Amino acid sequence: MIMKVKNEELDKVFRDFLTLKKLRRTGWQLRGIREGESIADHCFGVVFLTHFLSSLVSAKIDRSKAVSIAVVHEIGETRVGDIPYVTLKYFQNKDEMETMAIEDVLSPLGNDSAKESLSLFREFEDGSTIEGRFVKAIDKLEMLVTAAEYEKAGYSGLKDFWDNKSTFKNFEEFPELASFADYLLKNRSERLRGQL
Amino acid sequence: MIMKVKNEELDKVFRDFLTLKKLRRTGWQLRGIREGESIADHCFGVVFLTHFLSSLVSAKIDRSKAVSIAVVHEIGETRVGDIPYVTLKYFQNKDEMETMAIEDVLSPLGNDSAKESLSLFREFEDGSTIEGRFVKAIDKLEMLVTAAEYEKAGYSGLKDFWDNKSTFKNFEEFPELASFADYLLKNRSERLRGQL
Amino acid sequence: MIMKVKNEELDKVFRDFLTLKKLRRTGWQLRGIREGESIADHCFGVVFLTHFLSSLVSAKIDRSKAVSIAVVHEIGETRVGDIPYVTLKYFQNKDEMETMAIEDVLSPLGNDSAKESLSLFREFEDGSTIEGRFVKAIDKLEMLVTAAEYEKAGYSGLKDFWDNKSTFKNFEEFPELASFADYLLKNRSERLRGQL
Amino acid sequence: MIMKVKNEELDKVFRDFLTLKKLRRTGWQLRGIREGESIADHCFGVVFLTHFLSSLVSAKIDRSKAVSIAVVHEIGETRVGDIPYVTLKYFQNKDEMETMAIEDVLSPLGNDSAKESLSLFREFEDGSTIEGRFVKAIDKLEMLVTAAEYEKAGYSGLKDFWDNKSTFKNFEEFPELASFADYLLKNRSERLRGQL
Amino acid sequence: MIMKVKNEELDKVFRDFLTLKKLRRTGWQLRGIREGESIADHCFGVVFLTHFLSSLVSAKIDRSKAVSIAVVHEIGETRVGDIPYVTLKYFQNKDEMETMAIEDVLSPLGNDSAKESLSLFREFEDGSTIEGRFVKAIDKLEMLVTAAEYEKAGYSGLKDFWDNKSTFKNFEEFPELASFADYLLKNRSERLRGQL
Amino acid sequence: MIMKVKNEELDKVFRDFLTLKKLRRTGWQLRGIREGESIADHCFGVVFLTHFLSSLVSAKIDRSKAVSIAVVHEIGETRVGDIPYVTLKYFQNKDEMETMAIEDVLSPLGNDSAKESLSLFREFEDGSTIEGRFVKAIDKLEMLVTAAEYEKAGYSGLKDFWDNKSTFKNFEEFPELASFADYLLKNRSERLRGQL
Repeated sequence: MIMKVKNEELDKVFRDFLTLKKLRRTGWQLRGIREGESIADHCFGVVFLTHFLSSLVSAKIDRSKAVSIAVVHEIGETRVGDIPYVTLKYFQNKDEMETMAIEDVLSPLGNDSAKESLSLFREFEDGSTIEGRFVKAIDKLEMLVTAAEYEKAGYSGLKDFWDNKSTFKNFEEFPELASFADYLLKNRSERLRGQL
Repeated sequence: MIMKVKNEELDKVFRDFLTLKKLRRTGWQLRGIREGESIADHCFGVVFLTHFLSSLVSAKIDRSKAVSIAVVHEIGETRVGDIPYVTLKYFQNKDEMETMAIEDVLSPLGNDSAKESLSLFREFEDGSTIEGRFVKAIDKLEMLVTAAEYEKAGYSGLKDFWDNKSTFKNFEEFPELASFADYLLKNRSERLRGQL
Repeated sequence: MIMKVKNEELDKVFRDFLTLKKLRRTGWQLRGIREGESIADHCFGVVFLTHFLSSLVSAKIDRSKAVSIAVVHEIGETRVGDIPYVTLKYFQNKDEMETMAIEDVLSPLGNDSAKESLSLFREFEDGSTIEGRFVKAIDKLEMLVTAAEYEKAGYSGLKDFWDNKSTFKNFEEFPELASFADYLLKNRSERLRGQL
Repeated sequence: MIMKVKNEELDKVFRDFLTLKKLRRTGWQLRGIREGESIADHCFGVVFLTHFLSSLVSAKIDRSKAVSIAVVHEIGETRVGDIPYVTLKYFQNKDEMETMAIEDVLSPLGNDSAKESLSLFREFEDGSTIEGRFVKAIDKLEMLVTAAEYEKAGYSGLKDFWDNKSTFKNFEEFPELASFADYLLKNRSERLRGQL
Repeated sequence: MIMKVKNEELDKVFRDFLTLKKLRRTGWQLRGIREGESIADHCFGVVFLTHFLSSLVSAKIDRSKAVSIAVVHEIGETRVGDIPYVTLKYFQNKDEMETMAIEDVLSPLGNDSAKESLSLFREFEDGSTIEGRFVKAIDKLEMLVTAAEYEKAGYSGLKDFWDNKSTFKNFEEFPELASFADYLLKNRSERLRGQL
Repeated sequence: MIMKVKNEELDKVFRDFLTLKKLRRTGWQLRGIREGESIADHCFGVVFLTHFLSSLVSAKIDRSKAVSIAVVHEIGETRVGDIPYVTLKYFQNKDEMETMAIEDVLSPLGNDSAKESLSLFREFEDGSTIEGRFVKAIDKLEMLVTAAEYEKAGYSGLKDFWDNKSTFKNFEEFPELASFADYLLKNRSERLRGQL
């Protein structure tokens, strides 16, 4: 009755995972939110929204698969950290880096686990399946929901999150998410005007 | 092409969910870890471990269901907060409270969603299914993994987490988890002795 | 020359008391003020304002008694924590819980101390004496003073604190406090308009 | 029915008071406890212990007066801040500074209030009354209780707090406090040895 | 091949220096920015701006000397802390205190080092050289740059930093710094109006 | 009398620089020191130690040049962030990235400034001059000094910093730094044994 994986190996994976609780999302930090959310906070947000929204949209989403994608979509960051937007241009091989990192992190769990996770990550990154694209959209939606919350609390340097057209492109395939994003945008304008 | 749920309703659910990122786990705070993890940090830990461990244990676990239980198992805390251990004795109706809270939080998503989540929560709370008991065990295991990490970082008031017999009872049904918990315990003794 | 209470017992009371320094007020946290004040911060505010305002209002306030009420009014929270507003509806027995908690916390100090504190707490909770009602009003005033300070610093999700009619009801018996609360309200409107 | 003090004046006093919540005690910060307690946290501790211990010691303490001393004993710090130990040698006029600061802070409350507070502060500073010396002893005891708590949590640079003979001199007049301080010391040795 | 200074002495200087990382600037804290920058953060800002601006202004600045002044200009604060503006009036001997503190901090490095640093500090404090006055101006400019950043992030209690005429006087000798300060002021007005 | 650089350009450089205050060093965070120092804190440490140690070692160091290297040695991190050790293996082009980042950050200051800084950075990175190697050694020494301070405060997961042979290699050329590093190591062993 021994686990298929040694405790030592498991321990390595868990310690890597704990990194996601320790590192704060750089996007908020660079905008002056010093005690902002951790990467794990964000990950749970994506998992949570994926779980509940997958049955509320008209697109046919395999919830179980989508949630699995949500679980693994930031594992690369356990090794690479949360790379800020402004930094991306310096990376020639970000994609390759994250693939290597996921393999390294999960290899102690055995080949099957690492392979499945990599394949799920690729669906997310490449948008090759509807679930991959759905979680990508949720990833952005969760960011907007959080940005709105920070703005309600008084933080004000987050305009570029809302102005970023490429964020909203992800919602086009999912009209309900697009509608909710519009709702957030409209709410935001009213909130800003309400400060008058 | 309208979501089955109004944006206003969705917004309520998401704002409730964001509470889990804002509140820190009281167990660590009461032991002097002021900047400890959020409830959402812990939730992601439970989701993550459930996802990866469900196929590594010998017990037959429906991963999809188990992960769903992990996603919802703290939703009641969005309203009730993370009730410290020492406080539990003052609650005559904690169970009822959490049930009411989950219903309130999720009712905007419609009856089906609220019902499913409540039913999943009951499996966790009552231990009526193997998946419910598995996530309960993972809930404790994630706490120990985190406690070990805090101790490695230098925090030292966490002895009672390790001495609590009822924590370890949850692992009895899952020999691989019990084995890993033993591994953590052994590691801990060595670490403490190593400080000599 | 031995203290009437054993050191072990005293130690228990003090460790319980230290909880008030460790836990942050949930009201601010839920509105995104992550590094907000502790419960003890607030308690000292209520003690401070009670001490200085009791001789400045026209009502006849026994300062010594009022300050004693201020000292004990949150002792229940050492065990029960700072229950957020939204949570109160789930409590059938909040009153009873706090009474039990105060008894538990203070019992090591002996019957007299516990009894006096409970009786002072009841004056606060039930508003059965002018001092109890005065400290209740100060409890709210201190919250408004703190809310104003957070708003001056840039936090902005605190509108509902100011819109809560029941808060201001507590000032009716004390025209000077009502006048000062009006002053804070007027200042706030001017401040918000001044941002134009 | 107008307060004897203008709202504008009151507002000044309260804003000064809020400083005590914002500034952290430098003693802990210099020893690497970055998120340590605020000055207000400490003040409430002194008020709390004074309230409960005054009737437990054999010395005859006027509780009401002692608590009043505890309330005012750090008001000077609203203007002067928490001056670290190592800094004291550079002050030729610390005493005078704090007296001036208290007068400045409280003058808006009128002469009586400022005068009473200054007189209470002098009892504390000069040890001219039993209550003044009692609160001075409690001021130190509260620091030790807090130091013990930080050490239990894992912080370890606090040895000099315990080795400081002048701290313990304050307890000599109050055998029960001396006994409790001994209890803390003994506990500490056992705790340190227990780490072996 | 022994260092001219004993390791024990060096260690003292470095531990004093570390204080600058541990203490946060009080100016921001008093305005509700709880997790604001450390004194060392500010110091690096002054060093950085001095290094890069000294060759961009029309005044003839000895960069090497100016940077040295920037390095030492806050060493006194390792012992005296960051004295808030409101506190300065209580100091009869601030100047003398800082001189004593610098001497104490640097004396382990030997007479030459302490003497040079004191002399550089005096150039800064007395404005007796163009480099001293330049670093004084940069010291203020760095504060404004940081204030602007905090305001962009949402903090709003910083108006008096911008209204302080004496700050801007330091720029008069350096038209390029004055021009940049004007640019910051103009940007700020536009930003505030843009919130409409 | 116009600055050779436009205010808009200058503003870009300063905002990039401010990033160094906002981001915390990842090395400490990954070891559980959540509120650890910023990159700017570290930078000031390196500048400070370079300034004071350059005249205390027997090697002939051009202090002015060495301090300039210290000022610029982390500018690449304004864009690339503080890349954790474990991550380095995923970078094929870290060197190139930092060069590009420094060019981008400093280009608004004009060619001369960017060129000089790049050249200084290369001396640091390639160790092509004695000053470059000296600052590299100081960079490591500052890290050890800080690690020692965190350990004195109670943090305990920093063993690998002390065990890393490659760190100590940098001191070989500078016997006084090697001697001080030995002193820190010896102190550390005594401290750990002293906990017995």
